Amino acid sequence: MNVTIIGIGLIGGSFGLVMKEHHIASKVTGVDNNEQHCITAFSCGLVDQIKKLDDSLEKCDLVILAMPVNGIIKILPSVLDKIKEHTVVMDAGSTKESIIEVVKDHPKRGRFVATHPMWGTENSGPEAAKKDAFKHKATIICNKGESDNDALDLVTNVYMKLGMHIIYMEAKEHDVHVAYISHISHITSFALANTVLEKEKEEDAIFELASAGFESTVRLANSNPATWASIFMENRENVLDVLNEHISQLRKFKSSLEKENYTYLEELMTNANKIKRILK
Amino acid sequence: MNVTIIGIGLIGGSFGLVMKEHHIASKVTGVDNNEQHCITAFSCGLVDQIKKLDDSLEKCDLVILAMPVNGIIKILPSVLDKIKEHTVVMDAGSTKESIIEVVKDHPKRGRFVATHPMWGTENSGPEAAKKDAFKHKATIICNKGESDNDALDLVTNVYMKLGMHIIYMEAKEHDVHVAYISHISHITSFALANTVLEKEKEEDAIFELASAGFESTVRLANSNPATWASIFMENRENVLDVLNEHISQLRKFKSSLEKENYTYLEELMTNANKIKRILK
Repeated sequence: MNVTIIGIGLIGGSFGLVMKEHHIASKVTGVDNNEQHCITAFSCGLVDQIKKLDDSLEKCDLVILAMPVNGIIKILPSVLDKIKEHTVVMDAGSTKESIIEVVKDHPKRGRFVATHPMWGTENSGPEAAKKDAFKHKATIICNKGESDNDALDLVTNVYMKLGMHIIYMEAKEHDVHVAYISHISHITSFALANTVLEKEKEEDAIFELASAGFESTVRLANSNPATWASIFMENRENVLDVLNEHISQLRKFKSSLEKENYTYLEELMTNANKIKRILK
Repeated sequence: MNVTIIGIGLIGGSFGLVMKEHHIASKVTGVDNNEQHCITAFSCGLVDQIKKLDDSLEKCDLVILAMPVNGIIKILPSVLDKIKEHTVVMDAGSTKESIIEVVKDHPKRGRFVATHPMWGTENSGPEAAKKDAFKHKATIICNKGESDNDALDLVTNVYMKLGMHIIYMEAKEHDVHVAYISHISHITSFALANTVLEKEKEEDAIFELASAGFESTVRLANSNPATWASIFMENRENVLDVLNEHISQLRKFKSSLEKENYTYLEELMTNANKIKRILK
């Protein structure tokens, strides 16, 4: 199968690697406006060749859009216009409603499968691509009823071969969920980093003390600002909802400390311990 | 050297393990009110014997207090009363001001070294003890001027053998720092867990989606509520300071999203990226 990956950063580059690793793709073509990304992706063997967008669609069975959501929205309709009849297009965008909206009346809507593999790291760019990306993680396929059966089968097959667990969901529902389990973690980490950095103006030694707990909580604060600004903006309403809830949860801790209410403080943490169910 | 460890949970149990592993202790005696902890610690080989407190101080060169801060405050003066002339006492409590305060006029103050090894996990109890505990982490020794030179030398020597990097600090300063780099990470994690669990009442699928980023941010929410309630209470003023700063940092994210101020949002995250200096 000939695979074209548009956007060869962390996610696109990792797709290139694993598609070849699992013998899913016989040839991987990379497309990216960023010349440095093209050079890195080719020299690291993430893709077999680099082409311009139009040329890359010539002999292509599967197109993977691995760019920020606003980029996908811009390019997806014209990619659908240009593909051959049998070609399948999938995306890996972090939010799904706006992407699905932009092609909902497209005559080739059925060739598109909207997906979100739940994998990533705090690093970005093709040099951050990983061979064991995606494995054992969940991937979400949204609004499957709007995709052709053969397109759905092909994408399902790819994700199964990558060792992913597929969850089906409507786009609206998806966008709420990711606000809770991905977007808010990032905001929390960014804000925590800023909290410490604010203080560091006064106290330098703080940097010597960072423990493992701190590092794991603040790790996501290394994430790419442009990528995440666009994700948060795309999912603004949901993220604001969760952010309000999170601030109100923090205020409960604040109030229990202010009132020296030890019992309430312990109750809050005992409740939080239930998260073990998620973490296994 | 004969070592007595009072409190054989995660930290005390790990001390037992590594003191034997590094041939620092020829015999490790464990003391704990919790009978189950005693059984586990002995059967897992974290300690060589279990004794009552008074008996454990008979032939003892080093006493390690590895209990919650309120426990240390209660027991430390009488431990100092009872030890032999040459015995050294050190603690591993999470905050330092109140501990140092309680013995500041004690005639044997010089035998005590106040320390805080910056290591821990979200698990508790002796079964969570680890062989590679403490290694390559920082440890803080507070108010070293108040300890006898030989006591300081012995404790320094122990920490060096464990592969730790020693930082000297005044207790007041220590308590501010740990509020920033340890206590706030825990509150953030607990609050984040509660945020998600609040939502889960409505939506179940959320649990299937938890990604690595979420897991690392929320990992500390598994920590022991009783332990942390007492740490937060001990360090109440500093923790409240940091919590206020953290809530105000989160409000900046909220305001940038509400006003759709993309530039400000990106600026906040670009600033947070500076945390890379800490994480290396």
